[in-house]
Parts: sequence; structure tokens; C-alpha cells
Amino acid sequence: MSDKKKLIQPRTLKGFRDFPPALAMPREQMIDKARAVFRSYGFAPIDTPALEYAEILTGKGGDESDKQMYRFSDNGGRDVALRFDLTVPFARFAAQHIGQLGTPFKRYHVGPVWRGENTQHGRYREFYQCDFDTIGTDANAADIETALVIHDILSTLGFERFSIHVNHRLVLNGLLESLGLVEGAPAILRALDKLAKIGAEKVAAEMQSTANVAPEQAQKILETVQIKGSNSEILAQLDNTLGDHERAAAGIANLRQLVAAFTAANIPENRLALDVSIARGLDYYTGTVYETLLDDLPGIGSICSGGRYDDLAGLYTKQHLPGVGASLGLDRLMAAMEELGLLQETIAPADIFIAQFVEESLAHYIATSRRLRIAGLSAELYPEAKGLGKQLKYADRKNIPLALIGGPNEFANGVWQVKDLRSGTSAEVADKDLVAHLQGQLK
Amino acid sequence: MSDKKKLIQPRTLKGFRDFPPALAMPREQMIDKARAVFRSYGFAPIDTPALEYAEILTGKGGDESDKQMYRFSDNGGRDVALRFDLTVPFARFAAQHIGQLGTPFKRYHVGPVWRGENTQHGRYREFYQCDFDTIGTDANAADIETALVIHDILSTLGFERFSIHVNHRLVLNGLLESLGLVEGAPAILRALDKLAKIGAEKVAAEMQSTANVAPEQAQKILETVQIKGSNSEILAQLDNTLGDHERAAAGIANLRQLVAAFTAANIPENRLALDVSIARGLDYYTGTVYETLLDDLPGIGSICSGGRYDDLAGLYTKQHLPGVGASLGLDRLMAAMEELGLLQETIAPADIFIAQFVEESLAHYIATSRRLRIAGLSAELYPEAKGLGKQLKYADRKNIPLALIGGPNEFANGVWQVKDLRSGTSAEVADKDLVAHLQGQLK
Repeated sequence: MSDKKKLIQPRTLKGFRDFPPALAMPREQMIDKARAVFRSYGFAPIDTPALEYAEILTGKGGDESDKQMYRFSDNGGRDVALRFDLTVPFARFAAQHIGQLGTPFKRYHVGPVWRGENTQHGRYREFYQCDFDTIGTDANAADIETALVIHDILSTLGFERFSIHVNHRLVLNGLLESLGLVEGAPAILRALDKLAKIGAEKVAAEMQSTANVAPEQAQKILETVQIKGSNSEILAQLDNTLGDHERAAAGIANLRQLVAAFTAANIPENRLALDVSIARGLDYYTGTVYETLLDDLPGIGSICSGGRYDDLAGLYTKQHLPGVGASLGLDRLMAAMEELGLLQETIAPADIFIAQFVEESLAHYIATSRRLRIAGLSAELYPEAKGLGKQLKYADRKNIPLALIGGPNEFANGVWQVKDLRSGTSAEVADKDLVAHLQGQLK
Repeated sequence: MSDKKKLIQPRTLKGFRDFPPALAMPREQMIDKARAVFRSYGFAPIDTPALEYAEILTGKGGDESDKQMYRFSDNGGRDVALRFDLTVPFARFAAQHIGQLGTPFKRYHVGPVWRGENTQHGRYREFYQCDFDTIGTDANAADIETALVIHDILSTLGFERFSIHVNHRLVLNGLLESLGLVEGAPAILRALDKLAKIGAEKVAAEMQSTANVAPEQAQKILETVQIKGSNSEILAQLDNTLGDHERAAAGIANLRQLVAAFTAANIPENRLALDVSIARGLDYYTGTVYETLLDDLPGIGSICSGGRYDDLAGLYTKQHLPGVGASLGLDRLMAAMEELGLLQETIAPADIFIAQFVEESLAHYIATSRRLRIAGLSAELYPEAKGLGKQLKYADRKNIPLALIGGPNEFANGVWQVKDLRSGTSAEVADKDLVAHLQGQLK
């Protein structure tokens, strides 16, 4: 008889993944940078529970997300579910707290969501979302800021060649109204949304078959949404085509204000691209809509999308809460940063490695590491006085740029050997000059 | 017939809570500060899924945590559960990845965990844990660093009067062995763990009734664990009492090395308190054990606890993985910081409020806000050109310290009104001096 217990196989669920340091560190850095931008505009963080009453989350009901929801009975018999996005919990949150928080209310929220999706297309069942919204105001200033926040985040993350594609639903609505096509609008917008993927011809055919659009009407729509040129040329053409239509004119005026603000803020013109073809299929959006494309990786699609909506929380409150916001695609962003070489090479949490040469000097190594930290440096001390080769291999594997080596000889002479693990060069540095030397090497 | 749809009541589950900005901002700041300390010692972040196979999480089986687990069948019929701590997922993670990651491996992990606990005592069913561990080494250097990390985090958070209580299980084990009480050890340690709560007399009674401890033995145990004095006095007394016992002597040597390192690192002596009474009930710990108490709020108990263990992941792998680590009690810490006035007064994400006086100048306000951000300042622009009183009330409610006011007159003269919302004073500042002036006011 064996008394060995059987081991449990260590594994994660399908569609779920661990984040070892090599993935968790860049994600943390990316989120930190996004948060700094949010805060610099006055957006504040909120958090909501992972688990909610299922009736809250299924509020809209009947669509794909309900089927994908992780829903179960808790030990108290409550019908509960894991949130599948951050928008529905935010609507519930706003309905519950907006009286106390007041408007306008600007929040960001970064956190995991869960969807029992098909994992075939590299999709994960647990992934992070990163949303920001300004609610309780109709003012176009909030729409402009939304585009500015997207711009600043991408630019802070190191992207240089990108463009924020912007449209206004009133322009599209005005166009359809002027053609007498108000009833078919949802089907027409759904077709338009596929323009980049399937091309003008097939979109025209779909509009004709699903929304009773006449061929000349389809042509007029496709001409308008495909207006090309600089932002001011597009605005001028829209004025010509739709300037007389009251609702369309209001949308054009908002877009013009957005372009003017970007110009006044000195942002390169190609970072903002008016694009009348963007509809964003969702019925949800009613004003400005945003999609963000990377010039060098157009294939990955929009990495930050959003728009203005009329009413955030109508399912939970009678209070009218208009707003505008967008959602950063963190997974796509990280994949893009990796592909474009924007992830920082160094993934070491600490910049300086301290080898432990003789265990008797442990207190000295520790006192030195503390001196470095107090000076704002970060230092990792190897815990054991093992062979130097093994220790440096560890430092190398962690991508730590600098190593500090010292034993009885160095201590007797009041010096350290500082080895640059990137170049392989070494220097002897007096203990009193150590901090300044390391700071210089890390610049 | 009414066509009004019924509203869904916006509410959270019992034991779950929302974090509005007033709670989410200080928590975010607290976690940021802890992470900076972790990284400064070379700890790297990891993350694991919220949801795991139930067999992974119930690995140890049969205890309280199993009953409190959120466990259910997912849509694919898998028996799954939400993690109830970060230790078990870390053990599974280590078993799965340590071959690739190598040892020693230093990680921190901050994230929510879920327990269907009784909510009567103000306990939450969803709460954040913040753990850090060094695994794959027996070296006492890692134990010393664990205490240093605890010290640096508390000190970075603004705590001044606290002490890290440290003991070594080999000292306790040696004491019991020297009295021939090895078999009763678990029951004796459980009794000892209650010393602070129920007093020496009751502990002695419990040891006698549950572990067959003779009255003289109980007296000897209680005398030893209650040795008082400076750290060096305690070490000297332990040498006298248990220095001849090999295992106890090894524990004493480790504690002596810890005290020496803290002294060499110039940390005030009262921040580290040798305390032979600390057992930490868990059978899990085998070496150094830690508890951290606030001098001014002893009643809230330990805000950071942990210890050294022999084998992290024995349920999932044959690889022997010793380690040492601790867990920060974020909720307790935040409550303590609030009580001691250590939470920063300003909870505004942005430092400067820009009132919108005339909508026609929106582009100018936006360009100015951008200028401030590029200079490293944070600025929130009010989205609507409403009455100034209403706008300043909003800024005040958000605790924003400075407000920028400018309209046609100011713009014509190239100046801004800068209002200090803390003092109520105002100053007229030339546009070209604006950044420097604001930086000065925010120092």
C-alpha cells in the first residue's frame, strides 16, 4: 500500500490564463499610464463588485451577452452572475449613487470581466476592460475631451502613427432623414458598419435588400459617407450636402468644434480623422462616435472605441443621464505594443542586482540596498551566497541592467564592483560615490 | 394601459460594495505605494484567474473556506469556484510555471477574493488581498527582507508608530521539544495564539486540558513566551533558556541576524519587536512568523501577517518549494489610515479646475488645459458654460485646490484669475507666468 497522496493536476480553465511577470508587468505599466492620463483630466476611479444580481446584468435581456454570462445560484439561493462588461454595472452604479455624487460625473474603471465565449478565435473568457465616461452633461466639451484622452493615452504609451476616427450620429441621421429613410436607419447603419470589411458594392446591395433603399439613395449615402479629404475639406463638403438639414447641421457644428479644439491644442492634424462612414452598429450611441486605428497595424481594428449616448441608466432610474465615453482594448493594445516594439525591454522590477558574495556580510548588503532605495533606486539582493556565476545568470534572466558585486576585498577598500549586464563592462566605484554612479548609469 | 416599463431596482448583493471615488482613490493610492515598495525589492507582479477548477481550490479540503466558497457549474458543466484567497492560486501557479520562471521567485499579487462569509461583523464577501512571497529559497535573507518590505510599506503609507512582531517557529518547537511536548504542539500553539486575547491563566488552563501539559510545563512555556525587554535582552534570555537546544538555537540565530540587519539598516529599534508569544495558529508556518501592530490602534489587530513555510505547492507538485511571505490587510490599513488622518485630504484626481466662462472660447480653454498637462499638471475643465457659482461649487465638492477663471476681459489682457479654493484668495496672473504660478501654489 502506498501512502503517497495523489497530486492534483495544476491547470487553469479553458479561456483563462495566468499572468506571469513578463505579462503582468507590461499590463501594469500600461494601466498606470492610462490612469495618469484619466486623472490629469479629472476622471476619478470607481469600482463595482464582480458579482451582481443576475436581473441587474441581464437588464437589456435576450442578447448574446446573456448566453455567455457566468450565472449561478449563490449559497443563499440568490440568482447571481459575474459582470460581462463595465458599462452595465456603471449604469446600475450611476442610478444608485448619482444623487450623492452629483453631475457632471467623470469616472474611469479598470477591471476584469467574464464571458463564456467561444475560445477558438484567441478570445479569453476573462479579460480586462478599461472604460472612461463623463455623464450628466450634453456639452460637446465632454465629447472633445473624450477624443483628447484617447489621444493622450496612445501618445503616452509611445504610439506615434495613429488616428482617431470620429463621426456624429446626427450627421448620419440627418442624411437618412433627408432621403426619407428614417425607418430603415438601424438596418442601414448595420450595413454601413461593414463598409471597411466588405466594400461599397456589397453594402449597397445589403441596404437595398434589408431596408428597401433605392439604388440612387444607396449611391447618395455611400457618396456622403465616403467623402475624403482634410478635416476642413470634409466639413465644407458636409456643409454643402447637409448644411440645410437642421439635425445634420448640429452634428456638423459639433465636429467643427472638435476639429478647432484639436487645432488649438496643437495636435498634429492626422491624429484626428473625420470619417462619415463610422456608424458603430450599436443602437446605443446618439452623438459623437469614435474608433481609433493604428496606421501601422490597421488589421487589428479599433483599439479604442466609444461614443455619446442619450441615456445611460434608463433601466434602473427615471433620471435622464446622457454621457460620452470610450473603452480601451487593453489586450489589443498590448499585442500592438509588442508588435511595434513599444513594450519596454526591461521587465525587471528592480534596476540593480546585489550579489551576495559572503553571507557574513548580509547586514552590510542589506544596509547598502536600503541606502539605494532611500535614494529612489530599486535593488534586488540575491538571498543566498551562492556561486557568482549562478547569481549573475539569475540577474540576466530577469533583465536587471546593473549588478553590484562586493566581498571582503572590496569592503576593506571601501569600493564596489559595478557590472553593466547590458554591455558586460565593469567599473570599480567608491562606496561614497555609489548612488551617484548608479543613477548616472541608469539615465 | 401604461407603456412605462418597470424599473429594475439598482442594488448590490449583501456583503458586496461599490467603491465611489472617495473610496476608490485612496485604495488606488495605497496599492500604488505598496507596489512601488515591492518593486524596489525586485518583487514582480503576477495575476491568476478569478475562477478556477473547484478541485484546485478545495485542495486542502474540509475546512471553513470550502463552505464559504462561491462554487458552481459553468456552462460547460465544469465544477468551478471563485478564489477565496491568493495563496492557493499562487501554489497552483508555482507548481505549473516554476520550471520556466526559475528560483528564487519573488512575486506580489493584488486582487479581489470572494468568501460567502457571515456579514454580521462588518465582513465583506468580496475584498482585496495584497500578498508578496519569495519562494525557492531557505535563506534567512528572504525572511529579513520580508520584514523590511512590511516596514517600508507602512512607513511609505505615513505610519510612524508601529512595530513588526517577529518570532521563529523553531524557537517554539525547541521549547516544546525540550519539555517533551512535541505531540501536543498543535494544541499548545493554538492555545498560545490566544494569549493576547484571553490572558496567561486561561491559556495555561487550555494547554493543560487539551494537550496534557503539566502545570509546571505550562508555567515554563508561558514564562518563555513572555520574555520582555529590548531585542538584545530577549535574544540573551533565549540563549540562556534554549541556547543548548539545537533547533531552538537555529531559530535564535535567525532572529539575531534579523535584528542585526535592521540595526545595520538604521531602522528605529522599536519598529521591530521580538515576541516569543507569536505562534500564528496555522500549521502552515515553519520558520519566521510576523504580525504587525499599530501602537495607536492596537485594537484592530495585525495589519500585516505572514511567515516562512516549508512547502508551498505540495498538493500540485513533487517539487519542494519553501518560501516566506506576508499579506497586507488592505481594508484594515485603510480604516486605520482614515482614523489616524493619514488619508490625503485632497481626493480630487486633478489639481486645477478650469471654469468655462464663455463657450465661444472653448478651444482656448482646451488649449490652456493641454498646456498645463504637458507641464505635468492636471486640470479639469468644466464642460458647460454655466453660472460661475455652480461651477466653483462643483470644484469645491471635488476638493480641487485651485481654480482658473478667465473670460473676454482676461483674454483681452492676457491674464487669468487664479483662485485658491482652500483659502478663498485670488490673484491675477499673466498667461505666460501661469504654469510657474500654479506649480508654486501646489507645492
